[in-house]
Amino acid sequence: MPSISQDKNDYHFTTEVRVRLSETDAVGIVYFGNYATYMDVGRMDYLNQLGLPHYGGPVRDLIPGAVVSSAQDFYNPARYNDILLIHVRCAELGKTSYSFHYLITDKRRPRVLATGAVTLVWLDANFKPMQLPDDFRQAVQAFEGSA
Amino acid sequence: MPSISQDKNDYHFTTEVRVRLSETDAVGIVYFGNYATYMDVGRMDYLNQLGLPHYGGPVRDLIPGAVVSSAQDFYNPARYNDILLIHVRCAELGKTSYSFHYLITDKRRPRVLATGAVTLVWLDANFKPMQLPDDFRQAVQAFEGSA
Amino acid sequence: MPSISQDKNDYHFTTEVRVRLSETDAVGIVYFGNYATYMDVGRMDYLNQLGLPHYGGPVRDLIPGAVVSSAQDFYNPARYNDILLIHVRCAELGKTSYSFHYLITDKRRPRVLATGAVTLVWLDANFKPMQLPDDFRQAVQAFEGSA
Amino acid sequence: MPSISQDKNDYHFTTEVRVRLSETDAVGIVYFGNYATYMDVGRMDYLNQLGLPHYGGPVRDLIPGAVVSSAQDFYNPARYNDILLIHVRCAELGKTSYSFHYLITDKRRPRVLATGAVTLVWLDANFKPMQLPDDFRQAVQAFEGSA
Repeated sequence: MPSISQDKNDYHFTTEVRVRLSETDAVGIVYFGNYATYMDVGRMDYLNQLGLPHYGGPVRDLIPGAVVSSAQDFYNPARYNDILLIHVRCAELGKTSYSFHYLITDKRRPRVLATGAVTLVWLDANFKPMQLPDDFRQAVQAFEGSA
Repeated sequence: MPSISQDKNDYHFTTEVRVRLSETDAVGIVYFGNYATYMDVGRMDYLNQLGLPHYGGPVRDLIPGAVVSSAQDFYNPARYNDILLIHVRCAELGKTSYSFHYLITDKRRPRVLATGAVTLVWLDANFKPMQLPDDFRQAVQAFEGSA
Repeated sequence: MPSISQDKNDYHFTTEVRVRLSETDAVGIVYFGNYATYMDVGRMDYLNQLGLPHYGGPVRDLIPGAVVSSAQDFYNPARYNDILLIHVRCAELGKTSYSFHYLITDKRRPRVLATGAVTLVWLDANFKPMQLPDDFRQAVQAFEGSA
Repeated sequence: MPSISQDKNDYHFTTEVRVRLSETDAVGIVYFGNYATYMDVGRMDYLNQLGLPHYGGPVRDLIPGAVVSSAQDFYNPARYNDILLIHVRCAELGKTSYSFHYLITDKRRPRVLATGAVTLVWLDANFKPMQLPDDFRQAVQAFEGSA
């Protein structure tokens, strides 16, 4: 996994989630397995704001890509009702795959909670890798480049 | 279970959640088991806006009450990325227990998705029922009565 | 909701789940919203043992029916690593709908944890109610009647 | 993340989970975020069979360690009702931290679905790192060494 920046200025898109009781565990903190879901919310919000509804709409095209790797590092625990800021960037655009990086911070007490990365491959209806669609590539490049 | 109103005017508090991919299932719609969690988000947001932070704070007092019954009726399916409006009311205040009612509608295409109810008992540190605290009772009555 | 028996002899099928850490919450007990999932595991295991693979196979027919109502009553809390016995019966077979009842007990310390019921409607590919297939009806009647 | 073996002979403990409907998503496969939970079930089962009940009991000691990093690679999708074999090994014992490796295969159609690793730090009641307890270290070494 490439190094993930902990500087929020390296991320041009931010969204937030509030911790639900169902996401905590018996230790009293957010169960670590939920961070992948939080980061995925960040990715979906990122795609939405890029105006790519045809990659977020009908079930058959619901996921523009399949996750082939996922990783997270944890720095501080989050608790019930905390508001998490999810900073998102598309860090890499390959031929058939792409990667997102995430930085999660605590909104009320600014500090790093977690970082993460995910790599996806774009698949056709037969689960075979295919080239990233041009509109996806262009929209992401325009956003990441201009910001 | 008492009858649950499908008229949103009977509810004085509303919050929203957006459907995550992790909450859908292989049928392509929200897995029914997730509605209890959505409704619970509604209850917690309701308590927050009532200014009862001592019932939402430290782990030991995290839940002002334990759920003793929960029920939902489903009318229409929800899909990934739909925005759900969760209408919430406290429908009953007993001596040691209380009940919430919920109406969930689709924000973009107004229609009823689900209704539900939950009953909780206030417990002390030994898991024994105790009387509802006065400030809780008064805050709820003031809100439900005045609205 | 009809009355749900707390006598395990009224249930002819039993399966079990062990509580995962991710299913507990910050109060230290199983989050109530997870019981619907436990009960659903019970229903799926029940259908499997009835030899109805064509109702558990391809995605399009994955759920023989859509949940229209779900309810649970809670009697005792469960904790991390507890083994739950899920007792299952098909309590009602209508023309297009059917109901399951559940009793959940603690395997190591026998006592009732929860009861529940769920009602489903059999749907065609256009989400319209249709008559229960004969093989489903017959397999369930044979199992419930003979046991 | 160190290289994770895809040879099941490198793992001396195996447990299994069956995919629940709630764990699939609208694409029809297991949502990737659930694999961390499956692997965690593997870790907990591993600790149980080692006879370390004091690390799995009361809430305060519920997790012998806090997760500081988690990573997974995905090779093939899993579907509803698939039985997953979770192969587990403790790959590293440090002074205050330790790591587990996981290999997940499909029981009915043997093939690799995912690999993963997790690193944990043992914490005292104040969330400060502390040395691994001797009985934990010895039990793990005895099991991994002798197998």
